[in-house]
Amino acid sequence: MTELLTGKEVATSITEGLVKRCADLKAKGKVPTLAIVRVGEDPADMAYERGAGNRAAKVGVEVLKLALPEDTDTEALIKKIDKLNADDDVDGILVLRPLPSHIDDDAVRNAVAEKKDVDGIGDRAMAGVYSGKKIGYPPCTAEACMEILKYYGIELKGKRAVVIGRSLVIGRPVAMMLMAKHATITICHTRTEEMDKVAKEADVLIAAAGKAKAVTEDFVKDGQVIIDVGINVDEEGNMTGDVDFDEVSKKNVRITPVPGGVGAVTTSVLMKHVVDAAERKL
Amino acid sequence: MTELLTGKEVATSITEGLVKRCADLKAKGKVPTLAIVRVGEDPADMAYERGAGNRAAKVGVEVLKLALPEDTDTEALIKKIDKLNADDDVDGILVLRPLPSHIDDDAVRNAVAEKKDVDGIGDRAMAGVYSGKKIGYPPCTAEACMEILKYYGIELKGKRAVVIGRSLVIGRPVAMMLMAKHATITICHTRTEEMDKVAKEADVLIAAAGKAKAVTEDFVKDGQVIIDVGINVDEEGNMTGDVDFDEVSKKNVRITPVPGGVGAVTTSVLMKHVVDAAERKL
Repeated sequence: MTELLTGKEVATSITEGLVKRCADLKAKGKVPTLAIVRVGEDPADMAYERGAGNRAAKVGVEVLKLALPEDTDTEALIKKIDKLNADDDVDGILVLRPLPSHIDDDAVRNAVAEKKDVDGIGDRAMAGVYSGKKIGYPPCTAEACMEILKYYGIELKGKRAVVIGRSLVIGRPVAMMLMAKHATITICHTRTEEMDKVAKEADVLIAAAGKAKAVTEDFVKDGQVIIDVGINVDEEGNMTGDVDFDEVSKKNVRITPVPGGVGAVTTSVLMKHVVDAAERKL
Repeated sequence: MTELLTGKEVATSITEGLVKRCADLKAKGKVPTLAIVRVGEDPADMAYERGAGNRAAKVGVEVLKLALPEDTDTEALIKKIDKLNADDDVDGILVLRPLPSHIDDDAVRNAVAEKKDVDGIGDRAMAGVYSGKKIGYPPCTAEACMEILKYYGIELKGKRAVVIGRSLVIGRPVAMMLMAKHATITICHTRTEEMDKVAKEADVLIAAAGKAKAVTEDFVKDGQVIIDVGINVDEEGNMTGDVDFDEVSKKNVRITPVPGGVGAVTTSVLMKHVVDAAERKL
């Protein structure tokens, strides 16, 4: 039988603590504040911005939205980020990415001050995730996967975790975080041969291929835990994950739904980072 | 039948090009120079220092050896490193590690200027290896493994590479470098269950467990390529790898010997990084 690992409870358990911490901070005269920087009008960016705004309102985090025109260049964008770095009211900075292709992503990533880099996009944050040392914050989506596994009490030590996807936003960091919890990790990607066979070895499968229905029944074995990180929109305009849910859910697995899985947890993790950053400032 | 993947030819092929590049640099008034910083008198450190010195002499790299007493503290060590950072004659800095336990390793790692960090110990170099972006130099031992695979024409794209060991010196970086060549990577470590079964899946097995004879016949399948990164000394004072060579070599595998494998290539890679650094300065 399929068991759903829904994100809502996980998000609630994360945000419960945050409401009190925000109130405590406000009593000390500090309103935790997140700046969201968007370039252009990408619908996915705007959806994420709305979701983060709603979550922030519930928790007590203030959001400063900075929407820049599509033709903003690297220099202008970095100037804006520098201003936010220098603004003592701002605790965290989220730059919505991918940025338009004319912008130098590496320069922008590293322009965000380490202490305010709440989505872990800078080189120093990456070094922290890679090395397991406490440097900066890990990417929120990767941490959201870990929060789900923790909330549902899924054992990782010694177990086999297979990650499909090697991006810096999710594949690599979640693999490193799984290894830090002593899982044996495997990273698959577009060049992997016999991916279904590799995926089947997993006790925990992280689907972050970035492709709808990439994970079919053949990838899955009974007893597996599947975290579906995908966000795709099908022909009818419905949101689907990277897992062929109808097929896979016939098996005896535990799986996160899309929507209502990882996505529901990511903004809570983001708020946790902002509150952490605000507390560190005091 | 076992085929030996010896390091000597690989080292020769790397250093051949370096001799000419060093001569060219000297003609322009620049002598490529490596500073080796050692704290205490650890025999392994002193052996590596000698090996690097010999290799440097053959290539035409000048070596500046700085031997500090065992009781040197973090502050004093960093002062010495800062001096080398500021010294325009010095192109690369190698700090022999592990350092004595009273020294703050993280502070020392990041004290080495990024441009001179020829063994990739700083956070920025780590971010480079992790992300696949061109930042600094990867750790020499990890790159030595890759050079051996390249020299012997071993296909990596789509193949399964299993790394035993998750250290920042070798396990993690070599896994990332294998993935950059499009291998499907698995990292095993002390907590891995049924490691022999996992290792057997490998087309390429990297043994960096740090434990003599950790890799037995059960880890190995016919046709496998095995890179033995281990350096251990047995009861009779002989150097052995992490692979139980006598047992494993009965199989139909290609394997690096110890000594004469990875270790023979590491100092050549180090010299390559020093020459690269010297050229970049001009």
